[in-house]
Amino acid sequence: MLRFIKNLIALVSAKPVKAGKAAQQNETIDLILNRRSCRSFNSEEISREDQQVILEAGRFAPSTVNLQTWSFITFTKTQWHDVFSRPIPFRASFAVVICADTYRLKDVLPGFNGTPFVNLSFAIFNAGLAAMNMTIAAEALGINSVMLSETGKTGLLDFTYVKEKLNLPDGVLPVTTLVLGKSGSKLPVIPPRHPLSCLVMEKSYNKSAATDLKDWFHQMFIGFKLTHPLSNLNKQIEMYKKKMISVESDLKKYFF
Amino acid sequence: MLRFIKNLIALVSAKPVKAGKAAQQNETIDLILNRRSCRSFNSEEISREDQQVILEAGRFAPSTVNLQTWSFITFTKTQWHDVFSRPIPFRASFAVVICADTYRLKDVLPGFNGTPFVNLSFAIFNAGLAAMNMTIAAEALGINSVMLSETGKTGLLDFTYVKEKLNLPDGVLPVTTLVLGKSGSKLPVIPPRHPLSCLVMEKSYNKSAATDLKDWFHQMFIGFKLTHPLSNLNKQIEMYKKKMISVESDLKKYFF
Repeated sequence: MLRFIKNLIALVSAKPVKAGKAAQQNETIDLILNRRSCRSFNSEEISREDQQVILEAGRFAPSTVNLQTWSFITFTKTQWHDVFSRPIPFRASFAVVICADTYRLKDVLPGFNGTPFVNLSFAIFNAGLAAMNMTIAAEALGINSVMLSETGKTGLLDFTYVKEKLNLPDGVLPVTTLVLGKSGSKLPVIPPRHPLSCLVMEKSYNKSAATDLKDWFHQMFIGFKLTHPLSNLNKQIEMYKKKMISVESDLKKYFF
Repeated sequence: MLRFIKNLIALVSAKPVKAGKAAQQNETIDLILNRRSCRSFNSEEISREDQQVILEAGRFAPSTVNLQTWSFITFTKTQWHDVFSRPIPFRASFAVVICADTYRLKDVLPGFNGTPFVNLSFAIFNAGLAAMNMTIAAEALGINSVMLSETGKTGLLDFTYVKEKLNLPDGVLPVTTLVLGKSGSKLPVIPPRHPLSCLVMEKSYNKSAATDLKDWFHQMFIGFKLTHPLSNLNKQIEMYKKKMISVESDLKKYFF
């Protein structure tokens, strides 16, 4: 019970304490540290100009050897409905399927087909850089967002489904769908982060610090119970596991 | 010759034209769109407080199911020298080896060892999100940086070397090293980006647009010639290819 109370408090008070001062003084730091994923949008549209700024933020992300191994497939509400026969998840106004793209360079850089793991690893990392840039740019414009990996069959866990719907050639992996809009309600608290001491190490890896996560898992469990009172976390985990096994074999089939 | 001139002009004038107005009006958008990688640092140190803000920006990045599959291994100049017996690349003041970490969760989320591709894909993507957040936070503090994938044997292309130097357990992949400091000279122009029409597609993938990159490759070639007059781009590419083949087999050995 004491542990429950302690972790409940930790859960609702998760904050980047060490950097609080910088966040107060600097708009960009504040955006980065206090950003929250949004899962409820109002009906406000995102202007064409704002869409463009967000996409440019992706295009101008840095990437391994400037190879820009990404593609951004965009959808308005109507376009999403045309393709998926349902609204954008959480009724967001605009969606970008962010892909790790190892297809584009095949003609200009031939001869790299012997290293599919490495190529895909770089492409996925670069897609992460672009995705974060787009997300922060959106925040800077007052636009909320969430990156989806499973919800609404839109991310890596539904690889072959998205591949078919969007005509993705072999070598293109949809990693996440960034859905954007204006928040329709108060944003929830920041979900608990691993303690800094687990993540940040000096000079070399510290195995025992890295795995000291029991409190964190307990906080995640409490958070799930509070936000999904009727669901079962273990069932949710089993569902993920099942999907992951299926994607594992799809990845092998299409990439390796 | 005409093509050379055209692409030389494109090279030195690469700018996020479509979002220029937003960048003028918004500090964060400006940072994102005009950021350049820095490869020459002066001797100024980064304060402990600024280091902390940058690391917090990584810790508070979003991640797949909030799993935070990353580790940040930090180095001051002295610490780097202790481990690698040479200065931080480009004589930067502070370095963070950013790892995709599938090791940390092994105890709290057991039973996911059947899907190593998927686990690593998510971890690499999340590492990209954290890396970009840290990079932008640094920019916001007036600190320059570059993410290294090969220079100085610090990134994914030197996986087993870094693994040994930093005692990384199996399941931890060093994806990039972010080196940080204050720029020692004027930053170079932004290297050419793929045209927006190659990267951004509406509703579905457009194969012919995606591969229209001949001008881009020519610009890269000119850029390389200007910045490395004594080197040979094709030799450089062959060196990369050789390293990639070796990492490919290391990844198989340690992850799959």
